[in-house]
Amino acid sequence: MADTLDLAADPVELTIALVDTPSVSGDEKHIADLVERALREQTGLEVVRTGNVVLARTNLGLPSRVVLAGHLDTVPINDNLPSRLADGILHGCGSVDMKGGDAVMLNVAATVTAPRHDLTFVFYDCEEIEASRNGLGRVERELPEWLRGDLAIVCEASQGVIEAGCQGTIRVEVRAVGERAHTARGWMGRNAIHALGDALATLGAYESRIVEIDGCTYREGLQAVKITGGVAGNVVPDEAVLTVNHRFAPDKSGADAEKYLRELFAGYEVTVTDLSPGALPGLSAPAARELVAASGAAPVAKLGWTDVARFAALGLPAVNFGPGDPSLAHTKQEHVPVEQIRHCRDVLARFLGGE
Amino acid sequence: MADTLDLAADPVELTIALVDTPSVSGDEKHIADLVERALREQTGLEVVRTGNVVLARTNLGLPSRVVLAGHLDTVPINDNLPSRLADGILHGCGSVDMKGGDAVMLNVAATVTAPRHDLTFVFYDCEEIEASRNGLGRVERELPEWLRGDLAIVCEASQGVIEAGCQGTIRVEVRAVGERAHTARGWMGRNAIHALGDALATLGAYESRIVEIDGCTYREGLQAVKITGGVAGNVVPDEAVLTVNHRFAPDKSGADAEKYLRELFAGYEVTVTDLSPGALPGLSAPAARELVAASGAAPVAKLGWTDVARFAALGLPAVNFGPGDPSLAHTKQEHVPVEQIRHCRDVLARFLGGE
Repeated sequence: MADTLDLAADPVELTIALVDTPSVSGDEKHIADLVERALREQTGLEVVRTGNVVLARTNLGLPSRVVLAGHLDTVPINDNLPSRLADGILHGCGSVDMKGGDAVMLNVAATVTAPRHDLTFVFYDCEEIEASRNGLGRVERELPEWLRGDLAIVCEASQGVIEAGCQGTIRVEVRAVGERAHTARGWMGRNAIHALGDALATLGAYESRIVEIDGCTYREGLQAVKITGGVAGNVVPDEAVLTVNHRFAPDKSGADAEKYLRELFAGYEVTVTDLSPGALPGLSAPAARELVAASGAAPVAKLGWTDVARFAALGLPAVNFGPGDPSLAHTKQEHVPVEQIRHCRDVLARFLGGE
Repeated sequence: MADTLDLAADPVELTIALVDTPSVSGDEKHIADLVERALREQTGLEVVRTGNVVLARTNLGLPSRVVLAGHLDTVPINDNLPSRLADGILHGCGSVDMKGGDAVMLNVAATVTAPRHDLTFVFYDCEEIEASRNGLGRVERELPEWLRGDLAIVCEASQGVIEAGCQGTIRVEVRAVGERAHTARGWMGRNAIHALGDALATLGAYESRIVEIDGCTYREGLQAVKITGGVAGNVVPDEAVLTVNHRFAPDKSGADAEKYLRELFAGYEVTVTDLSPGALPGLSAPAARELVAASGAAPVAKLGWTDVARFAALGLPAVNFGPGDPSLAHTKQEHVPVEQIRHCRDVLARFLGGE
């Protein structure tokens, strides 16, 4: 486990040092200590520590400010530590989600000493667990001035491509009710599990709505994520519940999404259990246009929900930009091509420092 | 709680004494003690006690033998003790399931002193819980000679009507498999819950097969009794399992029933988790014909599975005959019209004693 971090050195070495510092959600004190100490060694940065959140910013009086955010925690280690570097691929817990992105942010903090925008760095805890403990949410409630700016870049894995905005997500419980009876006389009851048949047929027949916004293509989704029902092995069940997750493009509000689901599952009891609106890509903002130019590649739509939406809700255009394939996040096989780490660092240095 | 039982007195009073002696499954010692002591006071009965099973029989050397069986345990008390007698209706835990039947058996043991058939009485424990603890099953394994005879009467509630044979019951798990994916990119996976849609449609379209055997009408059934599936709120699930209970008429074997379900749910993984064959009504046996004549009413088909099937498997024609509405069994409102208790006692005394 690392004792110090050399922020200005190779961001790949820095990623390795971070990956080899375990920081499962709720256990981020050691990594936050390392990050805080290393940031305090830099000149020109105001550093604040609160719990296991570390905040740093320049105060150069520039006309615009870019906020960079990354979480320090990982999902539980899955027999995938210490890290292993082979053939240009770094393997290990957190290599994708998201210590490569953290390393890029830390390297930029140390090496972009004359930025074109004032910079704010937010390193936070507890992103991988229940939303109520999310460190970024706590900053939003307790230190909201640290999240002000003209563009937010969440350095979550995006394969080194700018992923703009994000889709919203809503979860509903679709409940069927019936009447209990002994299965030996099943016709005396009404089977609530059977009554979910139409809802499953609706899901089977679903076709994604596809929307293009700011050149980004969003593809919606509708998936059952849970189903439960049953009283006993000889009882016609009187209740069955299907949980459905709908991912909706950011041209729809949360209310639009709820209305859509209530119409789709008319005839059932529909209860919203979770709703996070999406975020429009916001690529027309000047700083966003500069970032796109620096990246040298066309931005794509973000399909999953990320903390980008928190910034969008605060009024900042926000994008995802970081190394690693997000579909490997949370897997035992998590790994990142080190070239993507260097690429992301170079794009951000070019954008922020005019290198 | 009663200290002694007066078997020869009014069977309604005897039912009240038994109901007011709590005997939830696993806790039958006190009631078994009372039953054992009262039976030992009768003349002409060989009595054996094993655990909380009490066995008694005549050994008159008659050419035929009738076995009467009743379980002593009840489901958990549900704020429905002590018993309450009002307007000819006896309320209380066990009043239907099946202390009225036990009282009829005990009264017959004490009052039919010159029977036309040798008699065997089996009072057993743990019928309301897992089959492996069923006291009748233990007698079958350890004292099989006590279950030999020419007709078995299980005195479970049948509204004082002879219910003949019983339907079989089979439970299968119908498993759909898929492939996990993040719900933000649901099209990269295959949703196992959605894949159960066809199985639910099959259940919804099911129509009962109706069969008449020995003048008894059996109506089959097919009911979902459980459904589960789901990994996490943002994951396309790769497994979903539907548990189906099929009740089949006794003209089908267990193998027939399994084959039927495997064909019905072709395309899914089908696993049999529970199978109890039914029992043919067996009403052509001489003793059964005498019982039907004594009852003065047409027999009907037994739709649920009962311990009758254990006797049928041993080669005895077996019927259900007892006081109470079986649909009230296991309910808080359990209650029995006392006239049914007297009616059942009288039918059995007429059949067995030639009164």
